[in-house]
Amino acid sequence: MHKIAFVGLGAMGAPMAKCLLSANFDLRVFDVREENTRPLSEMGATGAGSPREAAEDADALVLMVVDAEQTEAALFGENGAAEALAPGAAVVVMSTVGPEPIRGLDARLSERRLRLLDAPVSGGVARAERGDLLIMAGGPEDLFGEINPVLDAMGSTVVHCGPSAGDGQAVKLVNQLLCGIHIAAAGEALAYAEALGLDPESVYETIRHGAAGSFMLEDRGRRMLDRQFLPPKSALDIFVKDMGLVRGAAAERGFATPLSDAAHRLYETGASLGFGREDDSGVLRVFEEGMGPSQKT
Amino acid sequence: MHKIAFVGLGAMGAPMAKCLLSANFDLRVFDVREENTRPLSEMGATGAGSPREAAEDADALVLMVVDAEQTEAALFGENGAAEALAPGAAVVVMSTVGPEPIRGLDARLSERRLRLLDAPVSGGVARAERGDLLIMAGGPEDLFGEINPVLDAMGSTVVHCGPSAGDGQAVKLVNQLLCGIHIAAAGEALAYAEALGLDPESVYETIRHGAAGSFMLEDRGRRMLDRQFLPPKSALDIFVKDMGLVRGAAAERGFATPLSDAAHRLYETGASLGFGREDDSGVLRVFEEGMGPSQKT
Repeated sequence: MHKIAFVGLGAMGAPMAKCLLSANFDLRVFDVREENTRPLSEMGATGAGSPREAAEDADALVLMVVDAEQTEAALFGENGAAEALAPGAAVVVMSTVGPEPIRGLDARLSERRLRLLDAPVSGGVARAERGDLLIMAGGPEDLFGEINPVLDAMGSTVVHCGPSAGDGQAVKLVNQLLCGIHIAAAGEALAYAEALGLDPESVYETIRHGAAGSFMLEDRGRRMLDRQFLPPKSALDIFVKDMGLVRGAAAERGFATPLSDAAHRLYETGASLGFGREDDSGVLRVFEEGMGPSQKT
Repeated sequence: MHKIAFVGLGAMGAPMAKCLLSANFDLRVFDVREENTRPLSEMGATGAGSPREAAEDADALVLMVVDAEQTEAALFGENGAAEALAPGAAVVVMSTVGPEPIRGLDARLSERRLRLLDAPVSGGVARAERGDLLIMAGGPEDLFGEINPVLDAMGSTVVHCGPSAGDGQAVKLVNQLLCGIHIAAAGEALAYAEALGLDPESVYETIRHGAAGSFMLEDRGRRMLDRQFLPPKSALDIFVKDMGLVRGAAAERGFATPLSDAAHRLYETGASLGFGREDDSGVLRVFEEGMGPSQKT
């Protein structure tokens, strides 16, 4: 596994691809925005004009696009990568797309004797830049072993979540369920503090080290207090998508997720208020602007 | 402030009173269950037959009863403490009762020239035993200064939240909002992992140190995985009460709390399933038994 094709050079994909270059992989890159390939080319990657061109001769194709639709297009759309990959090559889906689309892809890639590993990530842009992501992989043990050096270059914790492609996605959904609820809870708490006539900054300092603490209260709570919604560290739209995936997989199993439902509605309201491309900590403003006392009659 | 009356020797009150004894305060104690006074008497406290008897000659009365109703009864009920306290004495309400009852008490105690500080706590029984609580106090600066040595004996972090009695309660409500949501979120996440066919223990190990982490995922998540619901570290009924207080204070201000609403319903459902006096981590079973796929038709 030395020649890697990398498709999707967005906020997360670009720093992840840079980590692969730093680890001396032979990298061919593609993004729908051609300008996104330039910084990678300057570091030694070869720019490609299509997923198909990127995938030629590659041992493994890494996909870090936005969603299942883009993953499908990159593999099977016009000039898609699937037909350029040699039998035995690996496809590594690192986007969060949910378990179901992965199972569909697995069947279709198997027909071409291509091998699929899913490996969604958690940690955000800053950790992606440091090669410090949490990577949750699903797929056969031997394939995981072969791909592990590639994942290791991008993550500090690489976990093999199960033997089926899609097992990484399932763990990622549990992760997103908690992250999505915790960010929204931080917003509810800090806006509530304000509504009670308290100083949110003092409340934050008082409670964050105790039983009320969470990674997201620390991280997004700080951005909420600073009202630092731009540039986004992670866009609110991502949780509109991911909480939708969480709820979709729950609904298929008849499993009720009342907290995820409430959080998802908050992100959807945030997007409808125009905050979708700003930081997800902007969900605070849903409490302030969309639902708070000032909007009541 | 040396002679202290302490009323309410339950799971939290008993270890807190012991901390005061260890710090050499002269302690007179009362509990509605007489047997609860015995361990304290053996350590050197004087048992009293009523709140009134406990309060005689006291510089300060500390109340750590269950709720606002019991606080009212201990102060103004039959053989209540209020009439035994000398003008200038301090009343310290450490139960979580919400800001509104404190304001009512403040007015009535002022008429008797008694001074009120509210000082609810966070941290649970284990930290109460170590004198390691977070204490959120509200009241005049000078009174806070006088009472501080008493609070210091019970807490490692004692914060003066504001100049009005009730300011501590308000900060405590923000704390409980987060704690109550985070525990329920841990239950939703671990039951969801199971519903997705994952091993909840492995998922917990994979995600708890990352962006999904919270104090409650660490602490209550562990108890959920061990199914260790008895004896309770903190009873589920407490969150039925506290999330009700959170929502009540929000409703008064026309402030919407969708996540707290969802969490409160989960605790209420847990209580209706018979889990109220077991550990609050038992909210996991609401997802499994009350709402999970096995209950759907």
